[in-house]
Amino acid sequence: MRTEHDFIGELQVPDDVYYGVQTMRAIDNFKITGQTIDPDFVQAFAKVKKAAALANMATGRLPKEIGEPLVQAADEIIEGKWLDQFPVDPIQGGAGTSVNMNVNEVLCNRALEIIGKPKGSYDIISPNNHANMAQSTNDSFPTSIKVCLSHKAKKLTASLDRLATELEKKAEEYKDILKMGRTHLQDAVPITLGQEMGSYASSIRRGIARIDHAIDGIHVMNMGGTAVGTGLNAEPEYIKKVAETLSEVTGEKYVTADNIIDATNNTDGFSDVSSAMKTTALVLIKMANDFRMMASGPRCGFNELKLPKRQPGSSIMPGKVNPVIAEVLDQACYQVIANDIAVSLGVENGQFELNVMEPVISFNMFNSMKYMANAVDTFVDKLLIDLEPNKEQCQEWLDKSVGVVTAMLPHIGYENSAMIAKEAYNTGKPVRQVILEKGLISQEKMEKILSPKQMTTPGIAG
Amino acid sequence: MRTEHDFIGELQVPDDVYYGVQTMRAIDNFKITGQTIDPDFVQAFAKVKKAAALANMATGRLPKEIGEPLVQAADEIIEGKWLDQFPVDPIQGGAGTSVNMNVNEVLCNRALEIIGKPKGSYDIISPNNHANMAQSTNDSFPTSIKVCLSHKAKKLTASLDRLATELEKKAEEYKDILKMGRTHLQDAVPITLGQEMGSYASSIRRGIARIDHAIDGIHVMNMGGTAVGTGLNAEPEYIKKVAETLSEVTGEKYVTADNIIDATNNTDGFSDVSSAMKTTALVLIKMANDFRMMASGPRCGFNELKLPKRQPGSSIMPGKVNPVIAEVLDQACYQVIANDIAVSLGVENGQFELNVMEPVISFNMFNSMKYMANAVDTFVDKLLIDLEPNKEQCQEWLDKSVGVVTAMLPHIGYENSAMIAKEAYNTGKPVRQVILEKGLISQEKMEKILSPKQMTTPGIAG
Amino acid sequence: MRTEHDFIGELQVPDDVYYGVQTMRAIDNFKITGQTIDPDFVQAFAKVKKAAALANMATGRLPKEIGEPLVQAADEIIEGKWLDQFPVDPIQGGAGTSVNMNVNEVLCNRALEIIGKPKGSYDIISPNNHANMAQSTNDSFPTSIKVCLSHKAKKLTASLDRLATELEKKAEEYKDILKMGRTHLQDAVPITLGQEMGSYASSIRRGIARIDHAIDGIHVMNMGGTAVGTGLNAEPEYIKKVAETLSEVTGEKYVTADNIIDATNNTDGFSDVSSAMKTTALVLIKMANDFRMMASGPRCGFNELKLPKRQPGSSIMPGKVNPVIAEVLDQACYQVIANDIAVSLGVENGQFELNVMEPVISFNMFNSMKYMANAVDTFVDKLLIDLEPNKEQCQEWLDKSVGVVTAMLPHIGYENSAMIAKEAYNTGKPVRQVILEKGLISQEKMEKILSPKQMTTPGIAG
Amino acid sequence: MRTEHDFIGELQVPDDVYYGVQTMRAIDNFKITGQTIDPDFVQAFAKVKKAAALANMATGRLPKEIGEPLVQAADEIIEGKWLDQFPVDPIQGGAGTSVNMNVNEVLCNRALEIIGKPKGSYDIISPNNHANMAQSTNDSFPTSIKVCLSHKAKKLTASLDRLATELEKKAEEYKDILKMGRTHLQDAVPITLGQEMGSYASSIRRGIARIDHAIDGIHVMNMGGTAVGTGLNAEPEYIKKVAETLSEVTGEKYVTADNIIDATNNTDGFSDVSSAMKTTALVLIKMANDFRMMASGPRCGFNELKLPKRQPGSSIMPGKVNPVIAEVLDQACYQVIANDIAVSLGVENGQFELNVMEPVISFNMFNSMKYMANAVDTFVDKLLIDLEPNKEQCQEWLDKSVGVVTAMLPHIGYENSAMIAKEAYNTGKPVRQVILEKGLISQEKMEKILSPKQMTTPGIAG
Repeated sequence: MRTEHDFIGELQVPDDVYYGVQTMRAIDNFKITGQTIDPDFVQAFAKVKKAAALANMATGRLPKEIGEPLVQAADEIIEGKWLDQFPVDPIQGGAGTSVNMNVNEVLCNRALEIIGKPKGSYDIISPNNHANMAQSTNDSFPTSIKVCLSHKAKKLTASLDRLATELEKKAEEYKDILKMGRTHLQDAVPITLGQEMGSYASSIRRGIARIDHAIDGIHVMNMGGTAVGTGLNAEPEYIKKVAETLSEVTGEKYVTADNIIDATNNTDGFSDVSSAMKTTALVLIKMANDFRMMASGPRCGFNELKLPKRQPGSSIMPGKVNPVIAEVLDQACYQVIANDIAVSLGVENGQFELNVMEPVISFNMFNSMKYMANAVDTFVDKLLIDLEPNKEQCQEWLDKSVGVVTAMLPHIGYENSAMIAKEAYNTGKPVRQVILEKGLISQEKMEKILSPKQMTTPGIAG
Repeated sequence: MRTEHDFIGELQVPDDVYYGVQTMRAIDNFKITGQTIDPDFVQAFAKVKKAAALANMATGRLPKEIGEPLVQAADEIIEGKWLDQFPVDPIQGGAGTSVNMNVNEVLCNRALEIIGKPKGSYDIISPNNHANMAQSTNDSFPTSIKVCLSHKAKKLTASLDRLATELEKKAEEYKDILKMGRTHLQDAVPITLGQEMGSYASSIRRGIARIDHAIDGIHVMNMGGTAVGTGLNAEPEYIKKVAETLSEVTGEKYVTADNIIDATNNTDGFSDVSSAMKTTALVLIKMANDFRMMASGPRCGFNELKLPKRQPGSSIMPGKVNPVIAEVLDQACYQVIANDIAVSLGVENGQFELNVMEPVISFNMFNSMKYMANAVDTFVDKLLIDLEPNKEQCQEWLDKSVGVVTAMLPHIGYENSAMIAKEAYNTGKPVRQVILEKGLISQEKMEKILSPKQMTTPGIAG
Repeated sequence: MRTEHDFIGELQVPDDVYYGVQTMRAIDNFKITGQTIDPDFVQAFAKVKKAAALANMATGRLPKEIGEPLVQAADEIIEGKWLDQFPVDPIQGGAGTSVNMNVNEVLCNRALEIIGKPKGSYDIISPNNHANMAQSTNDSFPTSIKVCLSHKAKKLTASLDRLATELEKKAEEYKDILKMGRTHLQDAVPITLGQEMGSYASSIRRGIARIDHAIDGIHVMNMGGTAVGTGLNAEPEYIKKVAETLSEVTGEKYVTADNIIDATNNTDGFSDVSSAMKTTALVLIKMANDFRMMASGPRCGFNELKLPKRQPGSSIMPGKVNPVIAEVLDQACYQVIANDIAVSLGVENGQFELNVMEPVISFNMFNSMKYMANAVDTFVDKLLIDLEPNKEQCQEWLDKSVGVVTAMLPHIGYENSAMIAKEAYNTGKPVRQVILEKGLISQEKMEKILSPKQMTTPGIAG
Repeated sequence: MRTEHDFIGELQVPDDVYYGVQTMRAIDNFKITGQTIDPDFVQAFAKVKKAAALANMATGRLPKEIGEPLVQAADEIIEGKWLDQFPVDPIQGGAGTSVNMNVNEVLCNRALEIIGKPKGSYDIISPNNHANMAQSTNDSFPTSIKVCLSHKAKKLTASLDRLATELEKKAEEYKDILKMGRTHLQDAVPITLGQEMGSYASSIRRGIARIDHAIDGIHVMNMGGTAVGTGLNAEPEYIKKVAETLSEVTGEKYVTADNIIDATNNTDGFSDVSSAMKTTALVLIKMANDFRMMASGPRCGFNELKLPKRQPGSSIMPGKVNPVIAEVLDQACYQVIANDIAVSLGVENGQFELNVMEPVISFNMFNSMKYMANAVDTFVDKLLIDLEPNKEQCQEWLDKSVGVVTAMLPHIGYENSAMIAKEAYNTGKPVRQVILEKGLISQEKMEKILSPKQMTTPGIAG
């Protein structure tokens, strides 16, 4: 054990850990979820610290003999080392100070080790004076959230892209499978299964664009704003430089906010990202539910899709198989919608110069990104790739349906068409037979009107 | 026009209106929704004011020559008069002071009229000194919300009771209609349509009990707490008395909170009521969606229920009829769920001695109570009463199903049953035929096991 | 009374109304909110119908003698006539068919009147065949929502722009008023009141951009998709044309979706707009709450802002004035956040080719747009314009504060600074005195470091 | 490795694990959160399985030589063994079948081991036929959730009770500390700090009662309902018996639902429990925020409470200490509110005979229970126990305040009181001086009226 102190007092720290006194306090203070900081977040924070150290060396304020080992320590974390040294609970008070100090302490102690000094020699390399130089939790924490979200969003949008691509394949593959279109769960007019798959794909592509746009919005950051956004203790040259170094370190363009104070006070950019995930979740739920309904049966339901069988569906009903993969996508999406409320509550409750709720905001957003990406991957890998249409059933429904009468509208008017529909429903006769019996149109014309192509693309049969 | 003043200054008030200067300010200050106070709330407030006046007369503090005309004015409002004299917007700042003063002003001016004095003679009968005697907005406003909610809840639970009763009738009526039970939208084991209706009824009855319990919780009130709950300017005798007079005036038992300060500071009782509505909405949505799915078709869906045809379903698709009544119940319930969030946000944001968000809390709760009651009435009157089961379709599905194999489990085990199910699915053979082919059980025993009664009630065929 | 019929049957319609049989059914079926369709929505719908009629005349399918009176009727509604002819409840089943048919019926009956024919002569001008030509509720209803939201958003963003502009004025006006910055509600480091106002302004400007971006997204529409988005009964020329005529009629660029089926199935664009309002509401709440806290007091609080006195604050506490305008902004914003949940629930529950929840989606969005715009206008007109800073109080707090010690950090290090802070807190001595007593820095240097300019802008005192 | 199979096919299972083929499939199918089943839930499930085995032995259907080792295996889990054998993800499709089968498999393999047979010998002891006898996931899973929630709720209400008890101590301790009461964040009338603490305590006690009531509601369960609630494959004697054995095993009274079908179809009881937590969270947030505001300062805020210093508050601002414990309580409560939305979405989306969303429902409820209990414990241990009032500051505010004028109301009327208040505000004179200058009341009478006791309890100075 080594002794460390802060202005609250002294504390014993196990000698083999890289974190220090403030992390120890945080472990003791915050025991809420039993979880620890997302490793992606730790690595994002290390990138921000590296960028700050590089900028501080560039302005000459941070001596190279301190800055370089700090950068090396940060690089090690970025490469995946020391990730077990971040034991603080993601739901914490203090607006992320505990995470920031955890990172500062690990960087310093590892840097001290690199230069051959004992851990805790903060008079040589200091968590507050060096690792945190020209920074505050209030700029480095939200900036690290942004770097982490950008990283996770890449995985999420890649997953969504896979989903859209696979759906587009199905759109092509199923383009000639005619089926009953449904509105209000009632028989409407024909559509192809391919058109439906194409519609899902198109809605997912919009989801990708939506998330990308929101993520763009958080590439504006407040490094250099320090405590309240005014830039106290940060030189203008540093502020300019750190945007460059952060862009280099992350490989993405980050820019300093025009109004750094606003960027320190307000967290609405996180709500934008969370809302984008929420809205995309709504689209995914709609799709998953359509799949569940189309797969309903197998004997007593729509039975238009055959989902791959992934596990026995019941502990009591032999042979039953359930659409478990679509169900888990639904549930992951419910979680995303719910998490967005936590984000809203967090964002709403900023006060004056800071939003102290950033820990719960980031916890929910990281979870949402991860759960959604995982659930989408699962949907692609476990369901979509092995999906099979039930062509016979699609055709069977269509043959029974009356809804095709809508296509007669431009030719015989709404009233006549409604009369035909009514008679077909009442008598149970096939709708084609009723049309012909009415003598309002020739068989040839009728078949032209009711051809699959005519029924599923714009235009009125000539 | 007459001139009135308050400590902000003077204002001209149209001479024909009963409200006064403070209402005028509120009209000018709050133009948010374009709506005015719910008439039920005005009447509830009049009951509270009447109760306060009676209690103040009983303690001798309020002279009868002032108290009696105030009571008469309150009675007139309770009977439905002057309801057009409450023009303030339901979403307002000031924690309801504008509603309270609107009521105080109308009561005083009407009371002055009754005793033959000109409106605005507040030196004779004063909104603040007499109509508001021993009261604050901070006790009379939340108490009036409680009285109003209790009133509205009676209508809501009556509507829910009608729904449950009608469902119970259907449960009896459909008790012999066997159909496929579904879990995961997949064919499970048989159930009767009557059992399903009975399940809905049972869940609705639980909703009634839930709402009743929450409403009980808000029969605890804080009259006499005045400004911050400490009872400043209210005598102990008045506090005791006003609980009695309020109980008399409303015909319901209201009791004074054990801790009146808490009852003034906190509004969690409203969240309880709103949550009870929310949870009941969830149950209603589940039921409405089952109806929508059972009515899906008519040719290409489950087609187990025939809903009454209430309107043409489409402007373009002739003959199409949609489950519009179930759809509107869903939507009213979505509103109730959403309104609960507004209630939560309001309740959360109390500070120190008061919750100034009570206007938005009450606005949402009144709307939820009204919308839900109306939508439930609509569901009963426009859908349930004229509902028809499609027995043939129910039987047809059942005849095709494989799920009945579950009943074999106690007799031949899970593995054998699963093998039979698999073969039935793969070959398309009727499940009964496959069972017999396996020779694991006699035909007589099989029929006993698969009898409707056996399949839908507890017990293992002997 | 005149007799009208649809395929459900006959109904008597009062002869003086322009709506017809299907509107009558809707009135009877949907009694949920007691409200009627938002007039802005009626006018937006008339624009869409006009655009469709123009496009149908351009393709030659709609005869001019029918199309022109329909266009004239639509123009009259756009100009504000007949707005009392739309009595249907905004929360309705049927995915908006009742609104669409209400509009179709009013247009036809007014058009019939224009050409001198009796109302109800639908054999001459037909709601379904002519007013609804090449349309379905499923394309015209969501498109009309988009046109209405675009219209309302203009008013909302104009209100937000006024707010931002006024805040920017205050930012300039208060640029030299130094005050204590606060994080965690704890004394942090100095900032100017002008910087705070500038931060609010900046966050509001981002809100405007956010709403504009979301509104751009719903200028993609599905006219011509008809029933399920496939374009059945709509010619390609009409589809092309109606995007042009709608752009002309509205004065805004509307484009046809690349995938019209997706644009018919999915309503996520509405969630984008609602989310944009929600996130902006969060920002407004943060600002309103800061104002409420800065105005706390007047004797026992922060007392940094003097809000204009808009009404007596209490029915019992004489002389009390409350921040009612900031409170009402909070509450309107809570409603917007809550309404977003209704929108999410609606958007989530689309099924197959349509989202039948569009009525509740649009009801909530229209209300949110209106309430937020009204509350923002109220905040500007009733609070911000007459706002006064309390300079003396701001200075007084600052003189007492210890937080300025942060500026010493780059000069004497974190540990020394913390020691000074601790001593100042413990002894109650002014922080400047403690600094000098420690002898770590000259008085001249200290004053340079602690100068207002130095404290509130980036840079380290040289 | 051993080979196991189900009706999907064969799979290799590591020989050292107690779970089997279906758990293996679940691990592969559901990789969403990266978390595993809550150990409390595993233990609750073991209790339910034990109860079922005991009931099945009692009816004679389950041979003792199979039942007894199953019971022993369950007992071991209840005692805390084998908790690492439950690797399935809590967010999963299949309505909990994977958890149920995981439990069934571990029980069987451990039971087999106990009787000296190799794992996987399901022909001897079978997961489906024996461990799951007379059960379905659809009754055992929701019942296990109930048992788990009841267990966790005990911890939560114990934590809340500690909080209330500690607040009651503070109420007594601070009963003579007079301070300014605040409404609208504006100076209102005096109250004691003890009264405020007592109000918090009272609201927390109501929270305990609320949670207890909701938990009572889920002691009604559906064991014996099996697949769809009809009791297929469960004998009436078993159904009666299992309620008894479950009550014995858990030490709590569980009763069988009157309508077991309803109890299988509907999950509103979970929404009741979640809503009870949500509403209690709202109350906790209100309290935490009051603490944060009362602790604001230390120099530039209310400064009425001194919170214990738990950690340095800033990485850049030396000596700053933040109310981190109150902040973390807020954030845990935001999570509870958000999780309630996930519960609502889950409960809403039941269909027909089952709610397949129970996994996400239970995941959120377990987390909410845990986070809230932890955060409440943290608040008590890290903040409340070491809380110190700042009496001097409380008195100082009070001496400056004008609000005490309210007490004059019954003696000199609202108008005179308002005039005095206005003059005090305008001139800055102490309010007592202004009262005396007006000559409306004697000094003796004034002091009686303004005495602390008189100001903070009901009654009018005689």
